[in-house]
Amino acid sequence: MTINRVFRYELPTAIEFGNGAVQDLPNHIKRLNGGKVLLVTDPGLVKAGVAEHVTHVLEQSGIPFHIYSDIEPDPDIEGVMEGRDAAKSEGCDCVVGLGGGSALDTAKAVGLMLRNEGHIRHYVGIGQVPCKGAPVVAIPTTAGTGSEITIWSVLSDKAAKVKLSVGSPYNCPDVALCDPELTVSLPPNLTAATGMDALTHALESYVNKATQPISEAMSVQSMKLIARSLRVAVAQGDNLAARFDMLLASLMAAMAFNPTRLGLSHALAMPLGARFHIPHGTVNAILLPEVMQYNVWSNIPKFVDIAKLFEMPTEGLSSRDAAVLAVEAVRQLKDDIGIQQTLSDYGVKEEHLDLVAEEAMTSGNVPVNPRQPTHEDLKQICRQAM
Amino acid sequence: MTINRVFRYELPTAIEFGNGAVQDLPNHIKRLNGGKVLLVTDPGLVKAGVAEHVTHVLEQSGIPFHIYSDIEPDPDIEGVMEGRDAAKSEGCDCVVGLGGGSALDTAKAVGLMLRNEGHIRHYVGIGQVPCKGAPVVAIPTTAGTGSEITIWSVLSDKAAKVKLSVGSPYNCPDVALCDPELTVSLPPNLTAATGMDALTHALESYVNKATQPISEAMSVQSMKLIARSLRVAVAQGDNLAARFDMLLASLMAAMAFNPTRLGLSHALAMPLGARFHIPHGTVNAILLPEVMQYNVWSNIPKFVDIAKLFEMPTEGLSSRDAAVLAVEAVRQLKDDIGIQQTLSDYGVKEEHLDLVAEEAMTSGNVPVNPRQPTHEDLKQICRQAM
Repeated sequence: MTINRVFRYELPTAIEFGNGAVQDLPNHIKRLNGGKVLLVTDPGLVKAGVAEHVTHVLEQSGIPFHIYSDIEPDPDIEGVMEGRDAAKSEGCDCVVGLGGGSALDTAKAVGLMLRNEGHIRHYVGIGQVPCKGAPVVAIPTTAGTGSEITIWSVLSDKAAKVKLSVGSPYNCPDVALCDPELTVSLPPNLTAATGMDALTHALESYVNKATQPISEAMSVQSMKLIARSLRVAVAQGDNLAARFDMLLASLMAAMAFNPTRLGLSHALAMPLGARFHIPHGTVNAILLPEVMQYNVWSNIPKFVDIAKLFEMPTEGLSSRDAAVLAVEAVRQLKDDIGIQQTLSDYGVKEEHLDLVAEEAMTSGNVPVNPRQPTHEDLKQICRQAM
Repeated sequence: MTINRVFRYELPTAIEFGNGAVQDLPNHIKRLNGGKVLLVTDPGLVKAGVAEHVTHVLEQSGIPFHIYSDIEPDPDIEGVMEGRDAAKSEGCDCVVGLGGGSALDTAKAVGLMLRNEGHIRHYVGIGQVPCKGAPVVAIPTTAGTGSEITIWSVLSDKAAKVKLSVGSPYNCPDVALCDPELTVSLPPNLTAATGMDALTHALESYVNKATQPISEAMSVQSMKLIARSLRVAVAQGDNLAARFDMLLASLMAAMAFNPTRLGLSHALAMPLGARFHIPHGTVNAILLPEVMQYNVWSNIPKFVDIAKLFEMPTEGLSSRDAAVLAVEAVRQLKDDIGIQQTLSDYGVKEEHLDLVAEEAMTSGNVPVNPRQPTHEDLKQICRQAM
């Protein structure tokens, strides 16, 4: 980094992390002066009994709640307004989000809309939200999104086939309650995809132009934990030590990228996710090695660091050759955890690439990427991943 | 760490870091709805013109202020009450602290007392403060204390010859405005002592029993920066890159230890500082190698990490031998930056050690230390440093 850089670092969310941490939910609700809870979760977690695990904790403390579980993957902006309406009609004054990115992003936005006027659509962009929302506690059940502490809610406008991002410090939950035990039942394919999302966060932040030493420290620790534990978490889902590492890696990756944004994988993931319904983690996993290949010459020392974090055999190699091993390490990891898909598998064809590149180019993740892509560069990255 | 550990991590302070960052002070005051500023600083900074640099920024934005600069090293608790009275009689509703630990710790406590009843003495301990204080912006001019983001104000009761600590999330400043340019005029001896204080923070947190991966990441980055830049900052005070590194190292060390506390150096530093007026950084520098020597067998892998961060020649060595090099690295650094003093130079004698050990043993920094000392162990550590 140049010594004239000014940077900001904020972490408005208080973090509680550890096995059994969810037992502490009632204390947090009380400390936040919450009366009745709107529990925002998804139907899968209700079916799997994870939601019941949480409502049981609330019941034991006599905290009333209402469940809003009408959350789909790539949640629609209208779901936020419905959640807000449910909270109002049920008299809920605080929100607990339980789930992956879809549930947490919706829960956070519902919290905002309990104390801000109009439609969530009005607050798309960065820093557009005027007021702090109702208290929100976020409980992640996947290790990938980092939504439990980020400023972001990524929502879909399914009618327009676009994804919209609301980014504001007011959109950070008050509390992130991170309990690795809640992630043990996540199936291998979702463990793999969400884990690659976390890696993409840590890695894109680490090499991008907006990073600074605080984020770098978080990225490094996150990548180390992923290198050590993602394969284990996929192959042996009940390995609590691996789940602990992965939930922590996801959290720390978010602590890294919250103030820095990301890179081309995330820029391209937005249109590819919105138009072809590729799960967010999967599309990042597919793109990341190709984006790394494109970026590697822009910051060789950082890519050498990454190769070393993944314990690649860099000894005796030139920096140039060692840097390339970072790309290889991530490709191996993706393969080892069974992510075989390509963009073609989701119907992406050459004729779609102009639109994808055009939409990706508008992302705030492009200017911070270490190499400035042309329209053709973005198309070529997609072609490599088809 | 064991996988059953639950930990919390909070960072209530928003950080702005970079050369020239102090120019942004008026925006922060306005955002915090501050009307009139009490500028808490020390007479040396007024004399050196550093205070004027800050008041000039306030004047240009038409923000009224009153200067309270009656701050001595090891500031007394009564100074906090005088500062509070000055703020009230001058109609100040927010506080800017400018200086090293003494000025910042006082400024933070004045902020607390503007919105809490009674005497600051009532709030000694952890979590004893009932209400958030008035808005506080902390501007460090030394790279060591980390007070700009910590929960702690360490104050002296000079009548009783003891140091008292007030620790509360409400004691964290609202904003830490970290401008390396303000540290360039710090003389070599103070640069050395305060830099060793930062190192002691990073290192004691890293090896103690309360640390967790978020703090570990911050400690590692902090120690790397110190290993690279403390000698340069002492030898070449106008080297802005080294000053940048050191201010960041001090900040990141505080991000590490804020939730973990420290170890035996800080436990012993309290009575030694209060009774023999040894500057805080100096007493830590004197003690740290001896405390490391005492702790090294309790966590060999962590000491090996430290030796590697200091680029000691660990290759081919056993872990045991590599760990010992961490102690040697810190001893070399202390010598290279000219800290030659011993406890004896400040009048500490064998007959004082019972009282020092007894008082140190009551510190909250003892239970987290990786090795549990006896009374005699604490005396022996002091003897090694005499």
